[in-house]
Amino acid sequence: MITLATDFGSPYPAAMKGVVLRATDARLVDVAHDLPRQDVRAAAFWLREILPWFPPAVHLAVVDPGVGTDRAALALRAGEHALVGPDNGVLFPAARALADGADVEAFEVAHDDPASSTFHGRDVFAPAAAAVHETGVADIGSIDGVTPAGETVDLRFPDPDLADDRAAGEVLVVDGFGNAVTNVPGEWLAGTETVAVDGEQAPVADSYAHVPAGERLVTVGSHGNAELAVNRGRGDDAFGVGPGDPVRFER
Amino acid sequence: MITLATDFGSPYPAAMKGVVLRATDARLVDVAHDLPRQDVRAAAFWLREILPWFPPAVHLAVVDPGVGTDRAALALRAGEHALVGPDNGVLFPAARALADGADVEAFEVAHDDPASSTFHGRDVFAPAAAAVHETGVADIGSIDGVTPAGETVDLRFPDPDLADDRAAGEVLVVDGFGNAVTNVPGEWLAGTETVAVDGEQAPVADSYAHVPAGERLVTVGSHGNAELAVNRGRGDDAFGVGPGDPVRFER
Amino acid sequence: MITLATDFGSPYPAAMKGVVLRATDARLVDVAHDLPRQDVRAAAFWLREILPWFPPAVHLAVVDPGVGTDRAALALRAGEHALVGPDNGVLFPAARALADGADVEAFEVAHDDPASSTFHGRDVFAPAAAAVHETGVADIGSIDGVTPAGETVDLRFPDPDLADDRAAGEVLVVDGFGNAVTNVPGEWLAGTETVAVDGEQAPVADSYAHVPAGERLVTVGSHGNAELAVNRGRGDDAFGVGPGDPVRFER
Repeated sequence: MITLATDFGSPYPAAMKGVVLRATDARLVDVAHDLPRQDVRAAAFWLREILPWFPPAVHLAVVDPGVGTDRAALALRAGEHALVGPDNGVLFPAARALADGADVEAFEVAHDDPASSTFHGRDVFAPAAAAVHETGVADIGSIDGVTPAGETVDLRFPDPDLADDRAAGEVLVVDGFGNAVTNVPGEWLAGTETVAVDGEQAPVADSYAHVPAGERLVTVGSHGNAELAVNRGRGDDAFGVGPGDPVRFER
Repeated sequence: MITLATDFGSPYPAAMKGVVLRATDARLVDVAHDLPRQDVRAAAFWLREILPWFPPAVHLAVVDPGVGTDRAALALRAGEHALVGPDNGVLFPAARALADGADVEAFEVAHDDPASSTFHGRDVFAPAAAAVHETGVADIGSIDGVTPAGETVDLRFPDPDLADDRAAGEVLVVDGFGNAVTNVPGEWLAGTETVAVDGEQAPVADSYAHVPAGERLVTVGSHGNAELAVNRGRGDDAFGVGPGDPVRFER
Repeated sequence: MITLATDFGSPYPAAMKGVVLRATDARLVDVAHDLPRQDVRAAAFWLREILPWFPPAVHLAVVDPGVGTDRAALALRAGEHALVGPDNGVLFPAARALADGADVEAFEVAHDDPASSTFHGRDVFAPAAAAVHETGVADIGSIDGVTPAGETVDLRFPDPDLADDRAAGEVLVVDGFGNAVTNVPGEWLAGTETVAVDGEQAPVADSYAHVPAGERLVTVGSHGNAELAVNRGRGDDAFGVGPGDPVRFER
């Protein structure tokens, strides 16, 4: 199985699929092709949240504002999974989640003369993902042109500052519904019925429909983190926040 | 075969696919993940129109504004097909179409302690659809935690008021092209060359390109119903109608 | 393998998939369903760019502003590939690319009484693509209702006017990133460091990130043609061009 995630929109990912399917009969599963464009941090978040739900697979993930520069191409081994994509940090949060405590091993994929300088998704990463799939995750290092990586670019999400009566965090991403997902763990909200968000009170609820339509709430979303939401509306608008903004909870 | 339909946009449906693929090798086919958001009636319409074109399959369909409340999770048997989704009516028009005159049998899927209160698509319905697929549509009732359902929420589309010289109906949905699909059956238009729509004459034509670009027409769309359309334009704008609006035809 | 490309958005392509899957177990791969709406020329460009990356397959491609008129339905044999779609030119540039120098053979698919006049993607082209897949590309002519085509509608992209110090071409398409893809071959830019685009100088660069964010560049895109682009921005806006506009390069 090979999953695909990009910020390429349409129809470029289809060229990647064609390249992959010339080399393998693997099942292909689209994760998303509308990841926030050239936003490595948001892509890293979504990959970390989505990929661990899959059975062992090769995950091809390309959000790559540096395409055509000298940034490396990586293949990572993470437990029974592999990830293939650019060396800009986008793969690592997901890789750590997939490795589940084991080490993540990083390999560099040589790409001396790809067919284009602007579409390494098609010309570098798709063939690499197919090769990893055909060779097997255990043997990535035996693939022609693949060598152990030296220093790689990492990416880590900021830790919140937690105390018993307050939590200072930030918005990691806003999803398509407008829910603003923070880095404050849901456990911090346990037993709390209302909380001040940047100074304004909001109810803490199990799910959206526990407050009337159009009203604000704080909930523990499917990522396990505190989310700012509105039932049948957009939390980002109602709370006036976007990705990277600080959020302060008090109770 | 398992089909998937949601209003989740991206990338949440990928987590559902991961969960399903941990449990089954079934072929997955996306129906749509941009169903009109939290619009149970529109989703029910599209499921009824699309699913009957498929061979026997398990149809996972989640448009679920009540997620996390006490609404039940359902699995329906409809002929050789099954449908899995929330108990808000969204499944029933499609189930009746798939059952093709036979009874629709409804089962309730227990979900005492899902991993989240906000993403039952991933935590309740995806595993249920995989279980139905693996167990087989004939044996839904034998799945652990699945019991015959009591009262369920139904949803029926309004019938038009038809006479020989007039038809009073309503717009059921507007599709992505801007075609306003009414509940007036196409047969009512048979032999009619022009018709008054809310008092203004429009030609009745076999297809869009039978009138000049930019001009209004009434046609029998692929759903078999009268549609308000514009050749290479948007019927909803030109006729000034949206979902739920009344439409009166006279001839 | 059957690929699918349309301008239908969602959820209509799912009905096509259902029809295909009633007739064949073929792998289905989506190319795009958001091709520029009713824009036969843009669709022809994208099919030509994307389909040759695939292994031998049947390519179902429906951008069909003339649906329901008397335009023919075609099945083309192009090397080991087949293409199925309307007779409006959309298939031919891709067919020539797939045939790779061999002749493209055109067949007409009879469709006397389809279930709808407005959705031949579902009622004519999907069953035809499944039949071609099941019968085999070599035997298209043996399918019931399929006959050698007479005159068909062709579509060719304009050739640029090239001299050593200037190139007069046009914008073929604008992609989702805002890159304006011209018909001027990338080779014309070889060895050039800056070029005047409609009178204003711009750097020629290997890829987007070789100029600062927000700045204009001319690059050789993944299609092999000169592209007008902006690093992390939209080239079409910055250069003030859209599909079909003339572009003049001077050096």
